[in-house]
Amino acid sequence: MSHDDLRRAGFKHRTRVADARDRLLAAVTPHDRTERLALVDADGRALAETVTAARDVPGYDRAAMDGYAVRAEDTFGASGRSPSVLRLAAGDAGGEDDPASVPPGEAVRVHTGSELPDGADAVVMVEYTEQVGDEVEVFDALAEGENVGDADEDVAEGQSLYDPGHRLRPSDLGLLKSVGVHEVETYERPRVAVIPTGEEVVQRDPDPGEVVETNGLTVSKLVERWGGDASYRDVVTDDEDALREAVESNRDHDVVVTTGGSSVGERDLTYEVVDDLGEVFVHGVALKPGHPVALGEVDETPIVMLPGYPVACVVNAVQFLRPALKRAGHLPDDAPPTREATLTRKVPSEPGVRTFARVRTETGEEGLEATPTRASGSGILSSVALADGWVVVPEEREGLEAGATVAVENWEWSA
Amino acid sequence: MSHDDLRRAGFKHRTRVADARDRLLAAVTPHDRTERLALVDADGRALAETVTAARDVPGYDRAAMDGYAVRAEDTFGASGRSPSVLRLAAGDAGGEDDPASVPPGEAVRVHTGSELPDGADAVVMVEYTEQVGDEVEVFDALAEGENVGDADEDVAEGQSLYDPGHRLRPSDLGLLKSVGVHEVETYERPRVAVIPTGEEVVQRDPDPGEVVETNGLTVSKLVERWGGDASYRDVVTDDEDALREAVESNRDHDVVVTTGGSSVGERDLTYEVVDDLGEVFVHGVALKPGHPVALGEVDETPIVMLPGYPVACVVNAVQFLRPALKRAGHLPDDAPPTREATLTRKVPSEPGVRTFARVRTETGEEGLEATPTRASGSGILSSVALADGWVVVPEEREGLEAGATVAVENWEWSA
Repeated sequence: MSHDDLRRAGFKHRTRVADARDRLLAAVTPHDRTERLALVDADGRALAETVTAARDVPGYDRAAMDGYAVRAEDTFGASGRSPSVLRLAAGDAGGEDDPASVPPGEAVRVHTGSELPDGADAVVMVEYTEQVGDEVEVFDALAEGENVGDADEDVAEGQSLYDPGHRLRPSDLGLLKSVGVHEVETYERPRVAVIPTGEEVVQRDPDPGEVVETNGLTVSKLVERWGGDASYRDVVTDDEDALREAVESNRDHDVVVTTGGSSVGERDLTYEVVDDLGEVFVHGVALKPGHPVALGEVDETPIVMLPGYPVACVVNAVQFLRPALKRAGHLPDDAPPTREATLTRKVPSEPGVRTFARVRTETGEEGLEATPTRASGSGILSSVALADGWVVVPEEREGLEAGATVAVENWEWSA
Repeated sequence: MSHDDLRRAGFKHRTRVADARDRLLAAVTPHDRTERLALVDADGRALAETVTAARDVPGYDRAAMDGYAVRAEDTFGASGRSPSVLRLAAGDAGGEDDPASVPPGEAVRVHTGSELPDGADAVVMVEYTEQVGDEVEVFDALAEGENVGDADEDVAEGQSLYDPGHRLRPSDLGLLKSVGVHEVETYERPRVAVIPTGEEVVQRDPDPGEVVETNGLTVSKLVERWGGDASYRDVVTDDEDALREAVESNRDHDVVVTTGGSSVGERDLTYEVVDDLGEVFVHGVALKPGHPVALGEVDETPIVMLPGYPVACVVNAVQFLRPALKRAGHLPDDAPPTREATLTRKVPSEPGVRTFARVRTETGEEGLEATPTRASGSGILSSVALADGWVVVPEEREGLEAGATVAVENWEWSA
């Protein structure tokens, strides 16, 4: 059989997307490189430690209402008809003339959030009081702790806040700072080497028959959006030895990804080189566009071999590179954000094949409408780059009808 | 009336969220600072120019199938029983021994994506041929252009690709590179000055009655996630003059945002200073938690005055700061991503008030479940930082029942 025939035969048994992904992830070991970062530098990083609160927050009892701090027992029996009368201490709690304490029979003006003075154990809302000269009439009987926020109301000392692998967000940084944490142990961003290949691929204006390198650029930027650190390498055009050298020399990365190499001519160099150096465990996946993807490993390094056609490249990067990168870097592999829309035209698909239909979205009278872009092939970069998202047709469906409610995935989201 | 009374009176007429946002956006002028960036530096930036394709892509006619490039007229009348017989030119199109052209009566081997040799105007699929020695039998009559991808199949020269304000994504960068664009004119990131205020707020371990600065840190990181350039300023604790100076000296930013200053004591310094220097057009919004937000401007600079309570601060940052920053920077103000979930407990709310209920999500038997975090107040930072999102209860609803299907918003998304 010719190599073409072999390839066609091999692709007869295309692996399902979920199985291919599982197989790849089994070959990905989360790395163990950590670095200690100041909070201000840690947004988006995965925690490499369990964080426990070093102190109570707010750290002191405080008034939960505007009113007067009192001893609850001084208000026992008070009511609208029969107020308790307390002596008003000068000054405001929390102000410059802060009275340090509330002696029996006295009341101190407090505002929401201010520290409860010593001795006080309740706050009477200003609405239930009347100030008369230097006395305060209290028209409500208070229970101990009423309208008081406890010192550990927000966070208690020793409370476990975050587990390793939690991806830090801006509000997390605020909470960590409030509990006295100033630096956090985080995992480094996962390192991804991006190697564009293909004898016709050039990094300059192309002559006829040549193609400008775009896949490596797009994939590198996707890697960064997904929380990784991309090394965008030179195009490998030469031969097997050059490709072998490129794969070998980038094995210090957590994931090696190649693009292309099979779009012109019969040779599928990348496949051959990786198969020779290590193992290719998936070759051909039941998805469209972009089935000729290959997944493998060389020693412990997972290798994602993306097809050279730009659309196929992006589809497979999202399906395979993203989860591999996330696992390598201890990052949560969140589902992509989706928006609900109504299909304006039918989307054909083949049963057993997961299909990614690029759509443009527009707000119509009945809400968001999704119109498939021309789907004339996996080589049409504009069908991706000018789209607003894609609709996934699962393997068990045979197309989607016009008028169907669909979820439009934003595959380029950052996270 | 005391200042407290005034404030309470003022808050009786709380502005609805949508109206407050509209009023603020009317005060925001998109800036006009642009910079020319290499594609590799332009991900996430808003375009400041219309981009038109400088050339066709792929730039040459190419084979859309594996097979033979032919002159269509040489196959007229061909069929399974009566093939056309063509002479096979040596070599492969696109290979090293690339035959430059297909003379009449000849055929050239081509692969999907390879350049169509001169003279050829159709490709016959390999399945409809049989090679016999140096001849090829063609069992199909071809029309001109059959199985050929046109030179401008992906993008046509002169085609308008992107309008100003389009936010560049990785696949856009690939497409731009393929059409010969190497640099793009982009808008600078919008500049946001973040000024934390409050006499009790400190940038060190707090003594009793003091609070660690967290709002400014959280807001600065949100600004960066949203595509802005944040200047995180020193805490202003002193007095009216210091605050006035801070606002004035940051008016070279596109948006000035302050946090806090009203959580302890009666003074609402920020409001007073901005009202004095310029105009406060919204004070108090019908949302919960966090109604005491104020929006204003000093000359042409919009000022967003966020409340000091951490939850209130985040809720209002998302409602007001984010759209202001987006408009200032020509960035699309996309809706936040949501996930559908089932409420496990009821969420109370007051009619007429837009309510943001923080929830934790968990995958249950019936799909994603959302459980409200303890909602004991806008001071509880952990109710935000330990949440997975929030559920918005619109003004016209009075709470949400347990079992309701809700959309959980991820308010910290990057975009």
